[in-house]
Formats: sequence, structure tokens, C-alpha cells
Amino acid sequence: MRAVVLHSHGGPEVLTIEEVAGPVPGPDEVVVDVAATALNRADLLQRMGFYPDPRKLQPEIPGLEFAGTVSAVGARATMWRVGDRVMGIEAGGAYAEQIATHERQLLAVPAGIDLVDAAAIPEVFLTAWDALVLQGGLTSGRWALVHAGASGVCTAAIQIAKAIGARIAVTCSSGKADACRELGADVVLERSPHDWLSDAKTAVPQGFDTVLDVIGGEEVDRNLQAVATRGTIVQVGLMGGGTTPVNVGLLLAKRATWVGTTLRTRPLEEKVAVTRRFAAEMLPLFDTGALRPVIDSIYDFDAIADAHRHMEANANTGKILVRVR
Amino acid sequence: MRAVVLHSHGGPEVLTIEEVAGPVPGPDEVVVDVAATALNRADLLQRMGFYPDPRKLQPEIPGLEFAGTVSAVGARATMWRVGDRVMGIEAGGAYAEQIATHERQLLAVPAGIDLVDAAAIPEVFLTAWDALVLQGGLTSGRWALVHAGASGVCTAAIQIAKAIGARIAVTCSSGKADACRELGADVVLERSPHDWLSDAKTAVPQGFDTVLDVIGGEEVDRNLQAVATRGTIVQVGLMGGGTTPVNVGLLLAKRATWVGTTLRTRPLEEKVAVTRRFAAEMLPLFDTGALRPVIDSIYDFDAIADAHRHMEANANTGKILVRVR
Repeated sequence: MRAVVLHSHGGPEVLTIEEVAGPVPGPDEVVVDVAATALNRADLLQRMGFYPDPRKLQPEIPGLEFAGTVSAVGARATMWRVGDRVMGIEAGGAYAEQIATHERQLLAVPAGIDLVDAAAIPEVFLTAWDALVLQGGLTSGRWALVHAGASGVCTAAIQIAKAIGARIAVTCSSGKADACRELGADVVLERSPHDWLSDAKTAVPQGFDTVLDVIGGEEVDRNLQAVATRGTIVQVGLMGGGTTPVNVGLLLAKRATWVGTTLRTRPLEEKVAVTRRFAAEMLPLFDTGALRPVIDSIYDFDAIADAHRHMEANANTGKILVRVR
Repeated sequence: MRAVVLHSHGGPEVLTIEEVAGPVPGPDEVVVDVAATALNRADLLQRMGFYPDPRKLQPEIPGLEFAGTVSAVGARATMWRVGDRVMGIEAGGAYAEQIATHERQLLAVPAGIDLVDAAAIPEVFLTAWDALVLQGGLTSGRWALVHAGASGVCTAAIQIAKAIGARIAVTCSSGKADACRELGADVVLERSPHDWLSDAKTAVPQGFDTVLDVIGGEEVDRNLQAVATRGTIVQVGLMGGGTTPVNVGLLLAKRATWVGTTLRTRPLEEKVAVTRRFAAEMLPLFDTGALRPVIDSIYDFDAIADAHRHMEANANTGKILVRVR
């Protein structure tokens, strides 16, 4: 099969496609012929050598999500048949024409969704839902705050919050405010030149029950100021840097919770559990039309380096897809 | 009644006892004739003007916990009769011969416990249990780490951890190590001249499931290094200061939770809920002998300033009581 193999780490030019052996399914696994994969910030970090696949497989094939059709089924696998339309998340290996994964990590592609478009669903909808609802306790009636309003995760978060009856404010750069409003954000806080924190306090004076942050850095202190009493800050990433001064007194006075979370490093049983629960609670909402993938652009497999350059330019609204076959 | 009234804030000398009007019970309240109250770190802060009673009652009578006998019952109160032995927590007002409180905030004094000694129970056992078990998720088999091993909260935490089948390490100054071991601590980490973190990693290499910290400051970073993957740090106080540099990457990589908590500022319904659950899950363990109050010393009411000086000297192991009548 053709796959992106990282022989070194660095800029987009290290993404070279070559022929490698295709995967053989383990007894509980299925092999998926990948129609499309999608980019994630983590892919850029992995390409630069900062975020290795925890499984340390060789050759190193990046790529965290995919949609395609089942092409082989392991001896004990019972959930899927050859030809089924599926999508899913793996710790790596999705920048390839085939990928093997545990059958219970797979999700059925909703009937009305194009197979390539489906690659825009797994990582951002599962991450946003897990962070907002499972880790962050968001329910109907409560307020969420999500940073980076036009990112894949945030475009999913806006739709999920509205679909479950919650309310949501997002921060974004000014060029992306309209896109966030069109997706259903109740409050759009432009980052610059405005001070989003004072605007947020005006809009939601009681504070936010759930804050989903992929940035960290300077946002950490503002998150603690914006979160409601007994609210939860869910830290999903750290685009803005690692060690940061924190006013621990605010955490205490608000009796707030700050939880770090990642999907990639979880053991199989946790990944399967969250995937099955997502299948029950979120997947039907793609059939009802409450949720839909938000696609910025679709690149050919041979232009995957250009897709990385596009993400690095921070110009996308929604997901950047790569058509693999 | 006689009560400590704060006319100004400052050193122990501002604790002056005078005659004030006794409380009248509201319809759901009872009045308790206070046999004894007990000191808490928060009392020192309140005396210095840094931690006011959130109810802002006048005159300002400090004191967060008490044991005594019911002397009057409100019109709708049904749980207690005059003469019942009770103990409890309030947001203030316990440095007095009488206190009024919602009847469902009260706990029955266990049969085998002296009424004065019972004043050593409510704040530290409720705080330690709420922090370790309800906020921190400690269960049988898991490891807790608690700082300030000879403090009231920690002497309670050691007993609670052992009583529910958990394991516990404590940090303490070297003079207090034997007292911690006698209470049942599995691992005692002396703070000085040793580096408790490296000793902790040697003793419990997988890390701690629940960290209970009353210190903050320099311990924040060490807590993040000591907590296990998916573990919880419960911040109950900040003796070591407020704003602190935090390695947010560790929170993320460990998928850890950091939660701030206080009892004093909670609304009535939360205080009642935690008190009733404590009555069901912890109070019977005083009857079985698994839990016992740890008393450092008992002062007369007129010597309450000396009791404060004793706590400020950090020389106590367990609770400092004040016999009120």
C-alpha cells in the first residue's frame, strides 16, 4: 500500500509517500481501506518530532483518523463485514491506504454522509464531546466557553453544545466570527483587538460551567477568571506553551476543577468505552441533522505537504481532509 | 452568653471575650450549648482579617466547629431533642457558649466519645473525607498522599484512608514522623533535610491516585510530579502562597485532575448533603474504633489567645480544643 513514512522530522517536506507492506488484521481487528484521512494539530507536532506515536511502530506512519470501507476482518471480529462504511481514530497510521484497528474502536459512517467527508468527524467530535460532556460535565442549560472558534474541535463543540441544549461562547480571530455564528455559537468573542475576558464577563456574568481550552499559556489565568463557581476547565492541548503562572487561590475560591485530557495515550479499553458511548449518544445526531462535519478543504494524497502548510497558516475553518484513494 | 468578639483584626490579643445576646433558633434550626470548640488554620486567617465569615454577621464571632448539647429546638425541627449530644460545623460563631445551626448540619456525638473531645471531630474528619473520597476518588487499594502529616486534617486523613482499605503516604517535619506512623501511615516522608518527592517516587513508583494538599506554593509542582496517571490533586488550602508556576503539560500528559475545594463557602444544601453522607459513611467508624479524634491540647475559654499562639508555633499534633463551658 502507499503510505506517508517519516524517515526524519521537520517541515512539511519530510512527508514522503512510499510503498510499504499493508497491515494484517489481528484476531479482534479489521482492516479498513482508507478513503480519506484528516489533519490534526498533533500531526504537525509529530512531523516535527515532538509528539511520537506512543506505540512506537516502524515504519513511522502518522495520521490519527480515517474513513473508509472494511476490507478484511480478523478471526474473532464480529461487528463489521467487508464493504461496511466505517470511520475511526488510531494513535497513528492513518496517512495510508490501509489501516488495522480493533473492531470496537470503529464507528459506522452515518447514512447521509459522504465517505470522504466522514474523515472530518471522528477526532474533533469525539474530542469535543468527551471534553465538554464526559470530562467537563456540560448539560442542557449550562454555559460552555471554547477557544479557537474556527478550529475543527471548536466547530464540533459549537454543534454539540447546541444539540444537547447547552449554551456556548467561543473566542476566535475576527475573520472567523461569522463562521462561528453560522454554526450556532450564542456568543462570539473576538480575540483582537478586544479583551475577550471582559466581553465574556459582560455576556455571561455568572461564569462558564465548562471551559474547553486547547491553548494554555496566557489563557490559563483568563480561564480561571472566566470559569463559574464549581465549574470545570478541560485542558485538551497546549498550543500556547507549557509552564505558566497560576493563581491557585482562584481554583480554591471557585472550588473549580482543572482536568488535563488526551485521547491518544489512553489504553484500548478506555478508547473502546468512549467510542461505544459516542456511538450511542452522538452518532444519531448526524442522522437528525443536528451535527455535520465542517470541511475547510480537501487535498489529494500526493499534496499532503500542502495540506500541512495550510494548517500551519491558521487559515482554516473546520477540517482539512486528504483523499487517500 | 459569653463569646469571642472581634472588634479589630490582628494578633491573638484581639480575641476578647464579652457578653452578647444568645441566638434564637430559626424554624429549622436548633441552639447548641457549646461544650467545646476547636481551632482551625482558617481561624488564624479570620483573626488577622484575611478570611471573613461569608455571612458577614455582626458582632463578628469566629469559630468553625463545636460539640455540645441541644438546648432549644426550632418550630419545624424534628431531628433532635433538648439534651442530645451533637457536634457540627458552621461558617462562624462557634467561639461562643451557644450557637444556632440548621438541624441537618448536626451530627450525633458517637456514644464512646467525650463531649469535649468530640469538638476535635467535625472539621478535620469531614474535610479529609470529603477531599480524599468525594473530591479525590480514593478507594480501597489506591494510594493517597497527604501533606502536613501531623495537622488535624492529616491525622484524620491517615485514619480514614486506613479505615476504607486505601494506602497513604504523608509528608511531615521530622519531629512528627513517629506520630504519623502510630496513626497508621504506610509511608512517612520527612520534609527536611530529605527531598520528599524522590523518596515518594521510590516508595510508590506508580504515583498517587489522590493527593490532598493544604499548602500549595512550592508543593504544586511536586504534586503534579507525584500524582499518578488519571490521579486527582485536591487543593484544600494555600498555606504556602497563591500564584505559582505550573507545568500544565504534566496535567495534560497524566490526564490528571486538580480541584479546589472549601467547606465554608458552600451553600446550605451542599453542606447538609455532605454532612448526612458523612453521618452514614464515617460516623459508624467512631463506634467501631477505626476512627478517633486526635487531640493535641485543651485550653480554657479565657486562654483562647494562648491556644492561637500554640497553633501559630506549628508545634501541635492533632487538634487544639477550647473548653467553652
